[in-house]
Amino acid sequence: MTTDHVTVAILGAGSWGTTFAKVLADAAIERDEAITIRLWARRDEVVDDINTNHTNTEYLEDIVLPESITATADPIEAVTGAELVVVAVPAQQARPTLARVKDALDSQAILVSLIKGLEQSSQATMSKVFAEELKLPAEQFVVVSGPNLAKEIARNEPTATVVACEHEATAEWVAAMTASTYFRPYRNTDIPGVELGGVVKNVIALAVGLTDGRGFGDNSKASIITRGLTETTRLATALGANPDTLAGLAGLGDLVATCASPLSRNRTAGKLYGEGHTTEEVIATMRQTAEGVKSVPAVVTLAHTCNVEMPIAEAINAVVAGTIEINDIAQLLLGRDLKPEARL
Amino acid sequence: MTTDHVTVAILGAGSWGTTFAKVLADAAIERDEAITIRLWARRDEVVDDINTNHTNTEYLEDIVLPESITATADPIEAVTGAELVVVAVPAQQARPTLARVKDALDSQAILVSLIKGLEQSSQATMSKVFAEELKLPAEQFVVVSGPNLAKEIARNEPTATVVACEHEATAEWVAAMTASTYFRPYRNTDIPGVELGGVVKNVIALAVGLTDGRGFGDNSKASIITRGLTETTRLATALGANPDTLAGLAGLGDLVATCASPLSRNRTAGKLYGEGHTTEEVIATMRQTAEGVKSVPAVVTLAHTCNVEMPIAEAINAVVAGTIEINDIAQLLLGRDLKPEARL
Repeated sequence: MTTDHVTVAILGAGSWGTTFAKVLADAAIERDEAITIRLWARRDEVVDDINTNHTNTEYLEDIVLPESITATADPIEAVTGAELVVVAVPAQQARPTLARVKDALDSQAILVSLIKGLEQSSQATMSKVFAEELKLPAEQFVVVSGPNLAKEIARNEPTATVVACEHEATAEWVAAMTASTYFRPYRNTDIPGVELGGVVKNVIALAVGLTDGRGFGDNSKASIITRGLTETTRLATALGANPDTLAGLAGLGDLVATCASPLSRNRTAGKLYGEGHTTEEVIATMRQTAEGVKSVPAVVTLAHTCNVEMPIAEAINAVVAGTIEINDIAQLLLGRDLKPEARL
Repeated sequence: MTTDHVTVAILGAGSWGTTFAKVLADAAIERDEAITIRLWARRDEVVDDINTNHTNTEYLEDIVLPESITATADPIEAVTGAELVVVAVPAQQARPTLARVKDALDSQAILVSLIKGLEQSSQATMSKVFAEELKLPAEQFVVVSGPNLAKEIARNEPTATVVACEHEATAEWVAAMTASTYFRPYRNTDIPGVELGGVVKNVIALAVGLTDGRGFGDNSKASIITRGLTETTRLATALGANPDTLAGLAGLGDLVATCASPLSRNRTAGKLYGEGHTTEEVIATMRQTAEGVKSVPAVVTLAHTCNVEMPIAEAINAVVAGTIEINDIAQLLLGRDLKPEARL
């Protein structure tokens, strides 16, 4: 793998995909190395905005993107010749997107998933979807996840993240490609831990948003975050994760950042549910999908398969499905007998 | 231990002591049992406000206190005949307060500590101070701690807490005395875990406040909370705690609630440091002491004694001592080499 002139494709020009392009571009500037970054956007107006103005106004307002970033509406053009291919589409779009580009992918390319969701139909994690769809060896698959609110990173605010790959050298290369004064990657080899931390976080953020919508305070929110991380850890370890990963940046860190931020889509969606809106209304109100709404049925199915208790995910699943009265939810989220704290 | 008419003393009429009096009073009303609660306040105007108006305006604004709560300026009168004695004074006041009342204490009385700090001179936890000063057996000593912002509880917002005692039956009794529709106690036997979670939380909250003062966002805050909990867990387990306690309500829960809330004194103090103020100025500005400012030198000494790394506590200690430039702190709090995430 060369590091003196790398070509990168980024599939998906939402706020996180675009910000990650900027992270790679800024890191190359700091290393004083050339880089070519091709960002695939579905819509022509986004492509034009990036190529003409060096902005992605719809998702990142007035952030100016470095010149090494160009956009294209053709995903095949984006990935052709790319040594690094970053995927930042909604989870349900991952498989069709990979299917569309797979014949054009370099067989040595490193694939990075920025996706925090499960495939609804199969409950598959993204590592599984990528492996199945691309016949990709584990050493070419990387997950990047952590307390990473895109808009803060786009403003160069100091941020830490986790770069995970089963193969340490690959993680090290991706970490080196992204590291800059404002972006600090930490390596990890625990793919299920990093992936499931990101997936379940979106579900817990819905629960936290829901308490906002019901008018509860920070004590309630902190309890839900605490119990939410416990049930996340239960599921992840049942699927082979190291519990330390969930206590780290890609578990606790990501959960706290999302739940602290008024910018979070999942928290915003939860708030709408808390105010009494249905899933149909929540989806109609929000411009971008809240991944938690899509993933929660798969999370609950996975929990049943693994025989793991996830009371918060179950409650949120019932809210999303519309099978529970919103007034009953507080008791479900917070109510339990007086007993010792639940252990893993 | 009778539960049909209990007499309680609460030493300290700040916001948490007064709110805890209300918690006990409301719980007795729900159980339809009589209770007598005597709240010791140092100042006559607070005593008069409580006895005349059933309010503690200075600390809890317009919250109306149940009639079972009366105040006294005499701590001996407060504790005489009390079966339950709750101590809610600043940590450095614990030993002199206990010394003052010890001859009047019932030998069977259960003592509850609401204090989240260490004794500066000895680095002793409150369990040690209580045991030394009162010759108190472990089965009569209880710690209550958790995500418990007093003003939210005073408004009857749903809150969970941890009631810890080495002796399960004592914890169960205190849990039963406090449980109500809005206050949910969970039992635990891990005194060092619950105590140190509360102590170090105040130090981490200073660090989070400091990032506010420097203008950093939620990504940075989430990283500090994550790394802060890791170093808290390192110290607590070195002192005999169960790591699960730190992942629970009295560790993670308390930390998240404090760091989420603009009401937190420690976070407010940290913000003032971040804006460039000295310890002298911070103390002069704030009405109530931020326990973290008092405890951080003792936390760092304890970490050295146990040979445990606590980089965030070390950085905050240097800020409080005025031995570091505030502009260097971001690198100290967030900067590290690109390496695998630190393990416990």
